[in-house]
Amino acid sequence: MRVTIWNEYRHEKSNPAVAAIYPQGIHGALEAGLSRHDLGVIRTTTLDDPSQGLPDALLSETDVLVWWGHRHHDEVSDDLVARVCARVHAGMGLVVLHSGHFSKVFKRLMGTPCTLKWRADGERERIWTVDPSHPIAAGIPAHFTLEQEEMYGEPFAVPSPDEIVFLGWFKGGEAFRSGCCYKRGLGRIFYFQPGHETFPSYHDPTIIHVIANGIRWATPVAMMEGPFVNERVQPMEAIP
Amino acid sequence: MRVTIWNEYRHEKSNPAVAAIYPQGIHGALEAGLSRHDLGVIRTTTLDDPSQGLPDALLSETDVLVWWGHRHHDEVSDDLVARVCARVHAGMGLVVLHSGHFSKVFKRLMGTPCTLKWRADGERERIWTVDPSHPIAAGIPAHFTLEQEEMYGEPFAVPSPDEIVFLGWFKGGEAFRSGCCYKRGLGRIFYFQPGHETFPSYHDPTIIHVIANGIRWATPVAMMEGPFVNERVQPMEAIP
Amino acid sequence: MRVTIWNEYRHEKSNPAVAAIYPQGIHGALEAGLSRHDLGVIRTTTLDDPSQGLPDALLSETDVLVWWGHRHHDEVSDDLVARVCARVHAGMGLVVLHSGHFSKVFKRLMGTPCTLKWRADGERERIWTVDPSHPIAAGIPAHFTLEQEEMYGEPFAVPSPDEIVFLGWFKGGEAFRSGCCYKRGLGRIFYFQPGHETFPSYHDPTIIHVIANGIRWATPVAMMEGPFVNERVQPMEAIP
Amino acid sequence: MRVTIWNEYRHEKSNPAVAAIYPQGIHGALEAGLSRHDLGVIRTTTLDDPSQGLPDALLSETDVLVWWGHRHHDEVSDDLVARVCARVHAGMGLVVLHSGHFSKVFKRLMGTPCTLKWRADGERERIWTVDPSHPIAAGIPAHFTLEQEEMYGEPFAVPSPDEIVFLGWFKGGEAFRSGCCYKRGLGRIFYFQPGHETFPSYHDPTIIHVIANGIRWATPVAMMEGPFVNERVQPMEAIP
Repeated sequence: MRVTIWNEYRHEKSNPAVAAIYPQGIHGALEAGLSRHDLGVIRTTTLDDPSQGLPDALLSETDVLVWWGHRHHDEVSDDLVARVCARVHAGMGLVVLHSGHFSKVFKRLMGTPCTLKWRADGERERIWTVDPSHPIAAGIPAHFTLEQEEMYGEPFAVPSPDEIVFLGWFKGGEAFRSGCCYKRGLGRIFYFQPGHETFPSYHDPTIIHVIANGIRWATPVAMMEGPFVNERVQPMEAIP
Repeated sequence: MRVTIWNEYRHEKSNPAVAAIYPQGIHGALEAGLSRHDLGVIRTTTLDDPSQGLPDALLSETDVLVWWGHRHHDEVSDDLVARVCARVHAGMGLVVLHSGHFSKVFKRLMGTPCTLKWRADGERERIWTVDPSHPIAAGIPAHFTLEQEEMYGEPFAVPSPDEIVFLGWFKGGEAFRSGCCYKRGLGRIFYFQPGHETFPSYHDPTIIHVIANGIRWATPVAMMEGPFVNERVQPMEAIP
Repeated sequence: MRVTIWNEYRHEKSNPAVAAIYPQGIHGALEAGLSRHDLGVIRTTTLDDPSQGLPDALLSETDVLVWWGHRHHDEVSDDLVARVCARVHAGMGLVVLHSGHFSKVFKRLMGTPCTLKWRADGERERIWTVDPSHPIAAGIPAHFTLEQEEMYGEPFAVPSPDEIVFLGWFKGGEAFRSGCCYKRGLGRIFYFQPGHETFPSYHDPTIIHVIANGIRWATPVAMMEGPFVNERVQPMEAIP
Repeated sequence: MRVTIWNEYRHEKSNPAVAAIYPQGIHGALEAGLSRHDLGVIRTTTLDDPSQGLPDALLSETDVLVWWGHRHHDEVSDDLVARVCARVHAGMGLVVLHSGHFSKVFKRLMGTPCTLKWRADGERERIWTVDPSHPIAAGIPAHFTLEQEEMYGEPFAVPSPDEIVFLGWFKGGEAFRSGCCYKRGLGRIFYFQPGHETFPSYHDPTIIHVIANGIRWATPVAMMEGPFVNERVQPMEAIP
């Protein structure tokens, strides 16, 4: 498998507190953690790289794309959004992390506003596995705790997920659909809520395990060979 | 519409603390609350009534059945379970409340163990509306609080709901799928988690509003006219 | 309720064969049929009307929008697409008919290519009700036949529907998910496959009955009062 | 993986026409076909074997159970039904074939009557893949044809499937949900419609491929270590 981790990579360069937690960038932490999960080739790329990190050559060689963005969603060009969505439709898997819920790519694929409530006060979150026989829950305990995370709260303006794997409980009083599965075209999409830049969630082995499972689950089953078209076809049975 | 509220009605007779909260029985509190919602004819019946409260004459005149049971699930006869399930299959709506999750009827209709975690310590629960355009959420706020409820926790061994309308957040650290919709045969089933006998949830107007919405949603769209059978049919097109 | 029927209304003006079937336009036939179903105020509007038929004043007074388009999807302005999608997100119902599967509005809301196979040879279609207790199936027989329709075939590049109400069987050998339900934001969306411009399906009372049911089902349960925003909220419980 | 194929194995012994098609029994044909798919250990067993073919020793060593039954569903003991359902709840996969739709096991797990329409006239069936990126569709063409099959028609009295992978088209005029996925407890269930005893469908490589894919998909992700119980738990957060 060929996994590409796309990171906005701006907080880490401008905010020393974030740099202290993620000195190699969020993408670096993800790569380090995921590299222990036998996922194949893992590459990283960022918004400030050429072609905003995803030239066609790289995108077309990506089986599953992991996406972390936050403050600069609007800088992502409509062209890149279109290319990523087309690649998802063609079968590429997509794992959208945390504030990626508001990326252009995710909003385009969901067809909804994707808004939510939030509070980055670093409260405790406990994640509950509600679909323990889902492949993304393989090896994940019935519940686990992050001592500090950003609260994401309902209503989460997304379509009803095809499958809900995890719920999030927050100390401040909220519950959230924290692990959600979708399909769009031939592509599988997993959204996973933890991962604020000021907290060390991507150094947590259980979080990494969930993301690794999400990547495996999102691995393409089939890839479109041509474009999506409306096509006239001949009848296979007599139409008298 | 013809609504029948079935209540086990034992706690109220044996436990003064429960009797103090529900002097007319849980069924009486539900009836009093629901009677303000213009639902048509509302009747109540209990386990110790003739035919365990549901003679054919009553069941066959029930459009939506509300079910509260707890300690004495096993006393409900297999015959009654079969008759209730058959009536649900034929189109009757069913609203299963709280500890009814472990009733024979619900387990039979779900096809799963329906087990969960619990703790009746009277902690705070906050209910979150995650599907605000669902008919069962009509007029219900984005979230509301019960100062004292029994915690019900995941894993909840039910099939993935067709629709999840509410999540529950508990002070003690759990999140739960608290409002779940299913279809079985022509019947619609709504499971709603609040309602432990030692807490006054069924005096709460918002809880009653949710149950009233659940009853409306579960109202039969169609009723089977005959039995469910495997039936041989003639082709409508030539099979050369 | 306030229903607005939007029709492209070009075939009827340029193709005498279509005009012969729909002398008042497809919108006129729909209006005539639906007016027998006690749906409230029904208005019609077309692509060549001012503001492409949907000025804000009309859109903001529409509870359920019915959409028929085919050859001129690309003429619909991105501004109108954005306004319609925003209104759906805010709670307006949307009933997308036949070739509307490839409208910009539907594709935007689905997040997928929405392509399919087709053949407008006028073969027999038989529609099967697979969810007979769904409100959209109320009063609809177990199956019914259209002597001439356009074949729409799988793969239909849409997200897995929240609910499938009808399957289509085509004489030429295809099966299709012909009646599909979705939610996007607070809005409910029903896609219904029949309705090619050269066949009289919208004069068929059963087809009209299904569309009327779809309109009722899509009636707003709730409407957003403000815009969709990511909003910072205070904790409701102490975060020590 | 350890696959067990359970076959009623009566038609083959009493009906020479069936014996001619399946001289080694339906289980033998399935075993021969599936053995080419690298699924691990495949065993077969039948109703007339000791313990009706599924002693605890075998059942507890089965990861995925394939079930074919037809005329003698009622002979399967309630004890065996309970043991199979418990094993599914604990995580065992289940692939239910054709007339197994009316087995006690499937009906118990679905919680519905599971009735349908049928016609064993040997007409053509064409199967359409509607979820091409589902693991069960891996390597399966967009559509394929069986020259002779039993028609199974809607309404199929099952819960709305979690996922529909295949639709069936029948020459005689029907469409059917032919490939359906469910979860019950920790177990995954795949129902696949083809396979009447008087037709050679289980000699068809594509049919076998689908069943092999179904077995892989149903492989346990997790197994329950103890029984399903309602369990009192301590709070993880202070309940003041």
